[in-house]
This record gives sequence, C-alpha cells and structure tokens, in this order.
Amino acid sequence: MSPNPRRLHESRIPNSETRLFSFPARIYWEDTDAGGVVYHARYLHFFERARTEWFRASGVSQHTLREEAGVVFVVHRMDISFNAPARLDDLLTATVMAGERRSASFVVHQHLLRGTESKPLVEASVRIACVDAATFRPRPIPDHLLLLQEITKP
Amino acid sequence: MSPNPRRLHESRIPNSETRLFSFPARIYWEDTDAGGVVYHARYLHFFERARTEWFRASGVSQHTLREEAGVVFVVHRMDISFNAPARLDDLLTATVMAGERRSASFVVHQHLLRGTESKPLVEASVRIACVDAATFRPRPIPDHLLLLQEITKP
Amino acid sequence: MSPNPRRLHESRIPNSETRLFSFPARIYWEDTDAGGVVYHARYLHFFERARTEWFRASGVSQHTLREEAGVVFVVHRMDISFNAPARLDDLLTATVMAGERRSASFVVHQHLLRGTESKPLVEASVRIACVDAATFRPRPIPDHLLLLQEITKP
Amino acid sequence: MSPNPRRLHESRIPNSETRLFSFPARIYWEDTDAGGVVYHARYLHFFERARTEWFRASGVSQHTLREEAGVVFVVHRMDISFNAPARLDDLLTATVMAGERRSASFVVHQHLLRGTESKPLVEASVRIACVDAATFRPRPIPDHLLLLQEITKP
Repeated sequence: MSPNPRRLHESRIPNSETRLFSFPARIYWEDTDAGGVVYHARYLHFFERARTEWFRASGVSQHTLREEAGVVFVVHRMDISFNAPARLDDLLTATVMAGERRSASFVVHQHLLRGTESKPLVEASVRIACVDAATFRPRPIPDHLLLLQEITKP
Repeated sequence: MSPNPRRLHESRIPNSETRLFSFPARIYWEDTDAGGVVYHARYLHFFERARTEWFRASGVSQHTLREEAGVVFVVHRMDISFNAPARLDDLLTATVMAGERRSASFVVHQHLLRGTESKPLVEASVRIACVDAATFRPRPIPDHLLLLQEITKP
Repeated sequence: MSPNPRRLHESRIPNSETRLFSFPARIYWEDTDAGGVVYHARYLHFFERARTEWFRASGVSQHTLREEAGVVFVVHRMDISFNAPARLDDLLTATVMAGERRSASFVVHQHLLRGTESKPLVEASVRIACVDAATFRPRPIPDHLLLLQEITKP
Repeated sequence: MSPNPRRLHESRIPNSETRLFSFPARIYWEDTDAGGVVYHARYLHFFERARTEWFRASGVSQHTLREEAGVVFVVHRMDISFNAPARLDDLLTATVMAGERRSASFVVHQHLLRGTESKPLVEASVRIACVDAATFRPRPIPDHLLLLQEITKP
C-alpha cells in the first residue's frame, strides 16, 4: 500500500520498448478542495514531481544545470484533460514518456493513473523549453545531457 | 497601484460589445519558486479566482449551486501557453471571456496580463463542465443561471 | 462585498493610537480542503500577504532590500491558534501589529477576522528575522528602513 | 537515495522504547520560493503528511473516522520554529512523537530533519483537536481508536 519509489525507479530503465517512467503520488489533505476532490492545479504538481524524478533518474541535476550551464527547463505549453477526480488517500502513479524534440524544447506525454484503472484520471502533453536561467530566453538543450539520448533515440 | 476589484467589477457589466471580465492578481512569495519566477501551476489559481469572481459578479453563487442544484463546475480540459514569467510583486490582471457553449459545458478564454504589455504572460482555453456534486457525472447547466445569458447571447 | 484594498490601505496610516494594518483575503477553492474548510497552512499565506503589503505600504520593497542590502526577512518562529475555520467565499481581514523588536528580528501580532465577529478565526505571534540573502545567517535590520520607525516608536 | 516509506513504516512499530514515527519529504520546485528556499508554510504540509501516514500506519483511516464517527482531527494550535531553510532536491524526514493527551485533543511533537544533521531544520508542537465534521465543535476522541493506545500508554 505504501509507495515504493525505488522499485518504480528500477523498473524505469529506458529501452527501445518502454520509455515510460513512473513516480507515485499520494493524495493528502493539502491536495483536495471543498468539492471533496483534488484541486485541479495540483495535478500539475504531480506531473512536475514525476518529471523532476525522471531527470534525476537520468542523472540530470536541475541544480547543476542551472549553476553550470545557466539554463533551466520550464513548462512552455500544456494541453491537459481532467477525465475523473482523485480523492483523499488515493495512491496515484504519474508517468512520463518522451515525445517530439526540437533544439530548445521537447514534449513529454504524461498520465495520472489510479490502481488498475485503464483510463488515466488526468492526461497531459507538456512542451518543456530550455531557457536562460536569468533572462528566460530560449537556449539550446546542452549536448551532454544524458537525457537527450533518451529523448532522441526512440 | 493597489488592486481595486470593485472598480473592475463595475466595468465588467456584460453587453454586446464587451464580454470581458477582469480580476487582479498580485504575486506574493507563495506564488514564486526557486527559479525566481511564478511556479507554473499557480497561474491556474489566478485563472480560477477570476472565473469565481466572474460567477460572483454574474450573481452566481457556486455554494448555492451546489446546495440547491446539486451541481458543481469543474475544469474538464485546459490548453495553456506560458509565454513569459511573472515575478514577485507583479500586479497582474486575469481576464475571462465566454466562448462556445454546450448543454453540459462551456469554454472560457483567459489571459494573464501585466501592466500595459500587449502580449499575455499566460493564455488559456478552459472547458468548464457542469457535473453532479456527488458523482462528478455530466449534468445539464441549470436553465435559471443568469450566467447562461452571458454565455449564450454573444 | 468586494475587497477594497485601497480603502484599507488608507485607513492604515500608522500613528500613536493605531499601529494596526489590515489587508483583505478572499477564500477561493485553492484555499479549502476536503474537510470543507480552509486548509490550516493556507492561513499562513494570508498572514504573509498582509505582512508584505504592510512592508509595501511602509515604503519597504523586499526586492530592493534583497538586491541592495543583501538581506531578506524570514519567519523564524510562529505561535498560532486556529480558533474557528473559514470557508469558501468568506471575505477575511488579516491584521498586522508591530511588537517587540531586537537588532536582527522583530515580532508582529496578526489576527484573521471575518466580518464583524469579535473573536479572530486565527491569531498568531510571528518573529521575523533579518538574514543574509545567501547564507540565511542573522543580520542587523538596516537602519534606514522606514519600517523601523513604525516598529521602534510605539 | 530514494525515499522508501515502506521501510520507515515497518521500523515505526510503536513500543515502550520508541514512539517515533518518520516519513520522508522530498523538496520539489512547488515547495520553494523566490528566496531560493522552501516557503515557510510548506513545512506544515510535510508535518501534516507525516501525521496522516502515522494515522494510516496505526490503522486509523481519517476517511472512515469522518464517515462513521462523524469526527475529524484538526490542528488547533501550533508552536513552530524555523531554524534553518531546506532547499530544492533536499530529502527530509518528518517525525511524529505523541505527547500529552486530553479527552478531545492531543499534542504531537514534530521535527523536520535533513540527512545526519542533528539539529532539526524545523520543529513544532501541534495540538490536534477532535471535532464534529459538520460543526467543528469539540468531540471526545472515539474510544476504539487504536491510535489512543499509542497516545495513552507511554
């Protein structure tokens, strides 16, 4: 019943068949609203946590990126469908799957799943832009990122 | 320099020329992240506050809707572009413009503007669904909503 | 019914009788939880917004403080009583009253009030520390702060 | 490096020597502010998650409590010290230790720790009240709560 991120990490190893990364999200009081379900903007947090852990699992430190390369990754565009609500105590899984890539941005497709339900509660396509940490202007994604291999070689 | 919601409310009166509603949003520490700018999911809060005030200004109480009609409005889909970041102390304006309407949902177009800048920092198309407050299944938008007049008669 | 921060600002002018500053807080969906009331940690946001506006009204820019003096104000200690819950759509007032002052910190007493109710929904004593923006070590409060006059001359 | 809540749960089994419960908290972008550190109110979230997991590990479902006994646990009072800031990517541990108990409330002492540092980043004493889920008036803590054994028998 408890989330076990380590196991999820281990099963994440990217290869040609599955480039799917998963990270758990437990629903706490902080995530819910007076409608009795999760406040819609909170789902973006779960997706962001999953992307951060996906970076971390790929050996990419966002802190190092910022300090050494002077760039940060920001959400540039998001198309998101809220299909069904999550509720207090739910244990969800947020997935990350790399999509199309350009020189200064890339797309990830993300699902939020509950238990064995086949239809995602929430699904999103997210364009992530690489920008200058100070000016927030577009910057090419640094070549040395391990992440790129994952993104470029489907 | 201070937000004056009352004046914005007064200028909001819907008519055939302008169906644009505006509500201010000041950026506080709570809205920012360690990147030095507003955390992306927070922009959804500003849009939601503006929609809530738009309902309120149209005489629609979400609390009454829930208690008496047994329905709530939820975000069903959102396409959102984050064009440029807002920063601490910024005073923004969130707009709401009614769009296409179906029996159980409607679209609003929303912009987040800073000062006299012409390009919105953030822009979103949001499909709002009317759902049963308990089951979250689609329900027709109640006829008596004043809001409907605003939405149906462009 | 709408918040009118301008009027509250005007009535705030500090003098020997009243050193009380007030700032409104409207309760939105984002502030509530599945218990049907405001999530407890959110009250700290309303208090922080009021302190920020109190600084702003005193001519103190936290951004300038950081850029020019290299210091930031942080919450060092907080004793907080949650007496009664606020609910969706409530319009509250957060107050700030300066208390005891030391060389590198000061106390503010804050109330969260609803309408004409005499007992605060929430009340807090907050010790604010002046710290180095990089190291977060204590630093003397800069002499030139107008705010100090308000704090030191009861 | 990844949090492993299961192991923490297992090691938590309350007994006469150790009544300390621990739960991990990873710092994400959502938790930080433009000061480069965690926004102060967010620490209350980590403490609340730990209390929720402590309840869950004790076999207490807050959802069942509300549905069957008609009561909820709310934070009534909190004395909190923010000793040092946490930063992006930090992996923290939030602890819960049961304290004094009355008929309708009890105290927990909580620490937020980083790695092997001996001094907690944040420490709090939290009085939790048992209240009616509808009226939020005090209600005796239900006898059958397993939790009580943990609280009453040090």
